[in-house]
Amino acid sequence: MTTLDHDHDLHSLRERMRHSAAHVMADAVLQLFPDAKLGIGPSTDDGFYYDFEVSRAFTPEDLEAIEERISETIAGDLPFVYEEISLADAKAMFSDQTYKLEIIDELPPDEVISVYRHGDFVDLCRGPHVDSTAQISACKLLNIAGAYWRGDEKRPMLQRIYGTAFESGEALDEYLERLEEAQRRDHRRLARELDLLSFHEEYGPGLVYWHPKGGRVRSIIEDFWRREHYRAGYDLVYSPHVGKSTIWETSGHLDFYAENMYSPMDVDGQDYYVKPMNCPFHVQIYKSSLRSYRELPMRLGELGTVYRYERSGVLHGLLRVRGFTQDDAHIFCRPGQVADEIGRCVDFMQFFLRSFGFQDFHVYLSTRNEGGKFAGSLEDWDMATGTLRDVIQSRGLPYDVDEGGAVFYGPKIDVKMVDALGREWQCTTIQFDFNLPERFDVTYIGEDGNEHRPYMVHRALLGSIERFFGVLIEHYAGAFPTWLAPVQAVVIPIADRHLDFAQAVSDRLRESDIRVDVDGRSERMNAKIRHAQLNKVPFMLVVGDKEIDSDSVSVRLRDGQDLGPKPVSEVMGLIQEAVDSRV
Amino acid sequence: MTTLDHDHDLHSLRERMRHSAAHVMADAVLQLFPDAKLGIGPSTDDGFYYDFEVSRAFTPEDLEAIEERISETIAGDLPFVYEEISLADAKAMFSDQTYKLEIIDELPPDEVISVYRHGDFVDLCRGPHVDSTAQISACKLLNIAGAYWRGDEKRPMLQRIYGTAFESGEALDEYLERLEEAQRRDHRRLARELDLLSFHEEYGPGLVYWHPKGGRVRSIIEDFWRREHYRAGYDLVYSPHVGKSTIWETSGHLDFYAENMYSPMDVDGQDYYVKPMNCPFHVQIYKSSLRSYRELPMRLGELGTVYRYERSGVLHGLLRVRGFTQDDAHIFCRPGQVADEIGRCVDFMQFFLRSFGFQDFHVYLSTRNEGGKFAGSLEDWDMATGTLRDVIQSRGLPYDVDEGGAVFYGPKIDVKMVDALGREWQCTTIQFDFNLPERFDVTYIGEDGNEHRPYMVHRALLGSIERFFGVLIEHYAGAFPTWLAPVQAVVIPIADRHLDFAQAVSDRLRESDIRVDVDGRSERMNAKIRHAQLNKVPFMLVVGDKEIDSDSVSVRLRDGQDLGPKPVSEVMGLIQEAVDSRV
Repeated sequence: MTTLDHDHDLHSLRERMRHSAAHVMADAVLQLFPDAKLGIGPSTDDGFYYDFEVSRAFTPEDLEAIEERISETIAGDLPFVYEEISLADAKAMFSDQTYKLEIIDELPPDEVISVYRHGDFVDLCRGPHVDSTAQISACKLLNIAGAYWRGDEKRPMLQRIYGTAFESGEALDEYLERLEEAQRRDHRRLARELDLLSFHEEYGPGLVYWHPKGGRVRSIIEDFWRREHYRAGYDLVYSPHVGKSTIWETSGHLDFYAENMYSPMDVDGQDYYVKPMNCPFHVQIYKSSLRSYRELPMRLGELGTVYRYERSGVLHGLLRVRGFTQDDAHIFCRPGQVADEIGRCVDFMQFFLRSFGFQDFHVYLSTRNEGGKFAGSLEDWDMATGTLRDVIQSRGLPYDVDEGGAVFYGPKIDVKMVDALGREWQCTTIQFDFNLPERFDVTYIGEDGNEHRPYMVHRALLGSIERFFGVLIEHYAGAFPTWLAPVQAVVIPIADRHLDFAQAVSDRLRESDIRVDVDGRSERMNAKIRHAQLNKVPFMLVVGDKEIDSDSVSVRLRDGQDLGPKPVSEVMGLIQEAVDSRV
Repeated sequence: MTTLDHDHDLHSLRERMRHSAAHVMADAVLQLFPDAKLGIGPSTDDGFYYDFEVSRAFTPEDLEAIEERISETIAGDLPFVYEEISLADAKAMFSDQTYKLEIIDELPPDEVISVYRHGDFVDLCRGPHVDSTAQISACKLLNIAGAYWRGDEKRPMLQRIYGTAFESGEALDEYLERLEEAQRRDHRRLARELDLLSFHEEYGPGLVYWHPKGGRVRSIIEDFWRREHYRAGYDLVYSPHVGKSTIWETSGHLDFYAENMYSPMDVDGQDYYVKPMNCPFHVQIYKSSLRSYRELPMRLGELGTVYRYERSGVLHGLLRVRGFTQDDAHIFCRPGQVADEIGRCVDFMQFFLRSFGFQDFHVYLSTRNEGGKFAGSLEDWDMATGTLRDVIQSRGLPYDVDEGGAVFYGPKIDVKMVDALGREWQCTTIQFDFNLPERFDVTYIGEDGNEHRPYMVHRALLGSIERFFGVLIEHYAGAFPTWLAPVQAVVIPIADRHLDFAQAVSDRLRESDIRVDVDGRSERMNAKIRHAQLNKVPFMLVVGDKEIDSDSVSVRLRDGQDLGPKPVSEVMGLIQEAVDSRV
């Protein structure tokens, strides 16, 4: 058996085990709350959940009691039994389960209805399951959350219990440790603790307020982004944040993207929309003059702030927001330039992600949906898909193919970066667009003097600055490398009489544009060091009598390393070295 | 008589002369178009206009004929005669002039109605006028434009004829020359010719699309702005672009600023607004934690994009738009810090404007409206107004006082910068705000352990990036100094065989982040030089056989100077010198 087979088998086992655990949990809840109405209970990537309607909120004690019942059921070694039943039988069987009835009522008339039983419990279910409850090796309930029935805010709010199950106690423990580590790194918590940013629900959820420290990191990211884009031959543009309905009609967004757009504003009796995407504006800039083949490739980039409607229930810290800044670019090129441009995009992506400390990526290639409608010609799709595949293969990047997963306007690659905990995060996307060039009649004059349609490629490397920053916080657990750290060094005077010298050291560092603070509070040195460590400041420069006498500072790092006294110029060199190496 | 008296008398003479010329022009139009309906005809800063309703569009020939009649009337030396009449007489006198009747109908019943006559012409008018038509020394009609009656898009569109009058033919000629120069520098024209940006009326007027070259200048301005703000002790933040109605209710904007705001968007049944100002968001960031006196002054800056509704009729290139980016900051400080903070703002303003080539400014101090409502206490106003006055006096800046001209929330200074044509442009504003800290209950904990209200100062140095860029274009007539020029150097190969060497030169320059292009077109050298001059590129580097042999380039400047052949390293030094000196 290859590793891949083993991985696949393990994955399948966990899926069956977790789905089975969901059933066992629902069984336990019904034993304790006989009036409970059941929603749905699937397995997930990390475990399982089940939604319940009960007359009162579950308590931690309930969870313990439920877990106990689960253990009993597992110990009982009850077999999972598959059964097919008629529609009438199904309705009878679940006559007091309103949500199940709703599901049954929506099934197509010719659907085979299947249920799974274990002990006295039965659930509508397609399976598969493990053979018996005893095969649920290690199971744990994790937490409770509210969840609208069918995710619809107009339907009742149910209580969702999350749990997980693993093939062994060790695997479960390992997972729980990783979970704890993930919670420790939760960007929402760190953003608060490190004073990076805030949300203000009362003035609108999903809208980010970047505080000075978060703003500092963002401006460093954006400066880096702009400089490297200029060096890579991109032109940077700025486009409006609102546009009249006409532009979204022509682009087609009002047809195929309306549900993600904010509702219109009335301006002089016309509908205006805040932009959900930058593309139509970049197309206008391209079209602002007659283009010659000599001007191609044209790479128009923008840190473009877009607004997209998301249901309030799915908003999640920086990872899912209602307004964000895309590191967007649109490349217009001739057919002969496509391969080179896609290659440059992929190389640029790698350079960017590695610069931010992500070494591993996983590429997903999405191809044409054979059954669906699509823009462009079959030849265009074949060429574009082949180019994407060639480029990722030639770079030796691991990739999966999502057959038929492309949107209608063109094939694409999505890149997920792997963080310090091994989690994958969607960031880069490189997409062909055969739609907008048609809709806006985008052309260039070729060497032959005739009009031609250029290829258009959308791409974002970081994805959204907000989301990327959220991942960065978690990846580094808030301890940003020196080049990104909002404060790079804190000078710590041991006593008040060392404050002047501390200030002089700070001034010297500041002159070299090092981001430095002086902790001038009347606290003990250890408290100040602890404070700097909590704030994840890379360099702590302690000054006392000894340091003043020798015109030096004692250097400590946030990981606890004590480098001892060093001349200020040497420390500046150390900091610069850390900045340059991006660690 | 002092110069000031002389200036004042000249100003008053011109005003009377121009107002009189407007009457004489209306007289001439009535002679040629007896059915014409008259709107209003005031003097303006630069001349005068009169609005007419006539059955067909005026032609250039009409303008000539009108000017001829004007000359005759001036030669006729007809006295202007003042007369007071009853309401009934006024109605009878203007019975066939519908617009005049509308004005008469709106007069308060006890209003003294006055008219001015010259020859057979009579107009509703408060005067004053010159004594006789002969005193209109030099008069010229300039152009025709459409103008809604009373500026209201729902009322009829009239035809407005603009003209001007001066005390001498020389003064008129001088003015016309300046006008021509201003037209030559018109930023809308230069923005098009230099491919800096565009507007796309069909997708919404007043919204700027920054092209690569305009975007390049903007990003340089913004980089400079951010760097200098960090160095000056500002913290930079990013705030959302939309906010729920609650934030605008608390801030008061929905009460006192609603007409400048876009209409709301519906999000989950709530009204959301795109922001017309950044202030309430910065207040939230200040309020995101309990503040100690030790944290003050806190200077929160943002290049914040705001959206303001302007009637489409007043939109004007970059100078009046519907969306723009303010170089905004809000300073929160303790009473004892106010003088220092205002001083820093004024010094920073001077540094900024001088960096962009503006040497002269004029400061306007606006004080409390004695009669009106106001936020804060009288003591606050006196202290704030006194501080503003002290700071501008101590810097020796020329200033005028606009007594009672302050908005209700605090006194302010506005700064106008003087451009290359001597025109004044509003840019910097520094305003106290006694309103928002109250409304949002902004506090800090003082040394005494009690809560105190900080002072809050709004300030923008450039005003809006869009507007400032418009003024910059006109100030430099598009020939940006090297540090701002989107393209700093063009390498011009004389023949195709020099292209490789040209490319190598370009690569060397580019490595030092010099913005350089190669003009590789198959055109004659002179055409390429002319092309670079039209594009206002500071440095042209010509390469041919001679230059290749001596590993040098022949340097020409856009003003026509020919510096002859120079080694590439020396040219890089020259360009760097120009960048550093900001000329």
